[in-house]
Amino acid sequence: MHMSSVAPVAASEFSAEERESVYKAIFTRRDVRSQFKAGKPVPDDVLKRLLTAAHHAPSVGFMQPWNFIVIKSVFQKTLMKMAFSRANDEAAALFPDERRALYSSLKLEGISAAPINLCITCDRSRGGPVVLGRTHNYDTDLYSTVCAVQNLWLAARAEGIGVGWVSIVRDAELRKILQLPDHVVPVAYLCIGYVDELYATPELELRGWRQRLDLDSLIFNESWGNP
Amino acid sequence: MHMSSVAPVAASEFSAEERESVYKAIFTRRDVRSQFKAGKPVPDDVLKRLLTAAHHAPSVGFMQPWNFIVIKSVFQKTLMKMAFSRANDEAAALFPDERRALYSSLKLEGISAAPINLCITCDRSRGGPVVLGRTHNYDTDLYSTVCAVQNLWLAARAEGIGVGWVSIVRDAELRKILQLPDHVVPVAYLCIGYVDELYATPELELRGWRQRLDLDSLIFNESWGNP
Repeated sequence: MHMSSVAPVAASEFSAEERESVYKAIFTRRDVRSQFKAGKPVPDDVLKRLLTAAHHAPSVGFMQPWNFIVIKSVFQKTLMKMAFSRANDEAAALFPDERRALYSSLKLEGISAAPINLCITCDRSRGGPVVLGRTHNYDTDLYSTVCAVQNLWLAARAEGIGVGWVSIVRDAELRKILQLPDHVVPVAYLCIGYVDELYATPELELRGWRQRLDLDSLIFNESWGNP
Repeated sequence: MHMSSVAPVAASEFSAEERESVYKAIFTRRDVRSQFKAGKPVPDDVLKRLLTAAHHAPSVGFMQPWNFIVIKSVFQKTLMKMAFSRANDEAAALFPDERRALYSSLKLEGISAAPINLCITCDRSRGGPVVLGRTHNYDTDLYSTVCAVQNLWLAARAEGIGVGWVSIVRDAELRKILQLPDHVVPVAYLCIGYVDELYATPELELRGWRQRLDLDSLIFNESWGNP
């Protein structure tokens, strides 16, 4: 009988130390732009561990819609850096005068400094026309792909590797650089490399861009707006 | 000089044991529908730790667009269960005959069984009209919110708590139940509770719905399709 093979097993408990390690990864993870160590490549087996962590993210209908495009060439990084710069100039112009100087002073990417760039994509056609769990929210495949990003980010933190997410780029330019087919969405473009130092709290907070919100003010009971 | 306060500090290294704990959470995390323990509530301080983990997710422009709606009442759970059932009947009808019987045999939610339901939402207006990093991809706030979901999911695993993501519900019905304003998107509706047992691999794989893909086939070099 096939059913015997689908019985759950004892959930492996976490010790207090193991639990604290998970929280350590969560609380000390940073979006890295400037701290990548020059001249220290990420070995293939370590990169494979990070991608394996990403591949074990939850996905709607077990769709596993992700692909991983590993970019190491100076040529591709240069194209990406140029695309970022164009978009960042456009972005800076959108901020009011009193914010623009601060915006322009922020370093928002580590494309060239990071030994590895990685684009995590979502193939929207992967599960066929009807995907379990996606029937009422078509974008859950994109959400699954983001879960893969966060898995990789936390695994990287545990490996001593920093990750930065570059979102300031025109979609059409990124698609052209990576030669993406139309049914594939570039969800995250990541810069990846070893780090010795990190900011103690998010860099945008330290530089006075925006403060951390009070958690209690974000929690409601039973329905929206009910404290 | 303000700059001295924004210097990075030594990145706290992870020991081999700490690193393995992070991977343990990633690899043993499951989407839980049936294993919630009856009669074991989640204490408020434990729930607060999970929400704190979610609140420390990366967010575009440090926007922190999330809110957390904690649902414990039988009334709200019953409304949600009814909304799920209606949507699930619609979903079942979309599958071809040979898949429909298997689909209908799957348990896809633990709304009533889980002591806590939690909706994690995205307030698209939170950062004002121009958000750093969102100028070229408006949906990065939704992605940030999903990062919060995955942080919570992994923290929950470390706490011995299971999480299941219910995505089969009409958006309009969920919005009405939770009284969401138009500018707020319900990104994830989660069922949360203690578990003693979990499946060794994803339930949809065990039940023959879909197999895990070969990771190597998902990795490309430099651009799409380049193995």
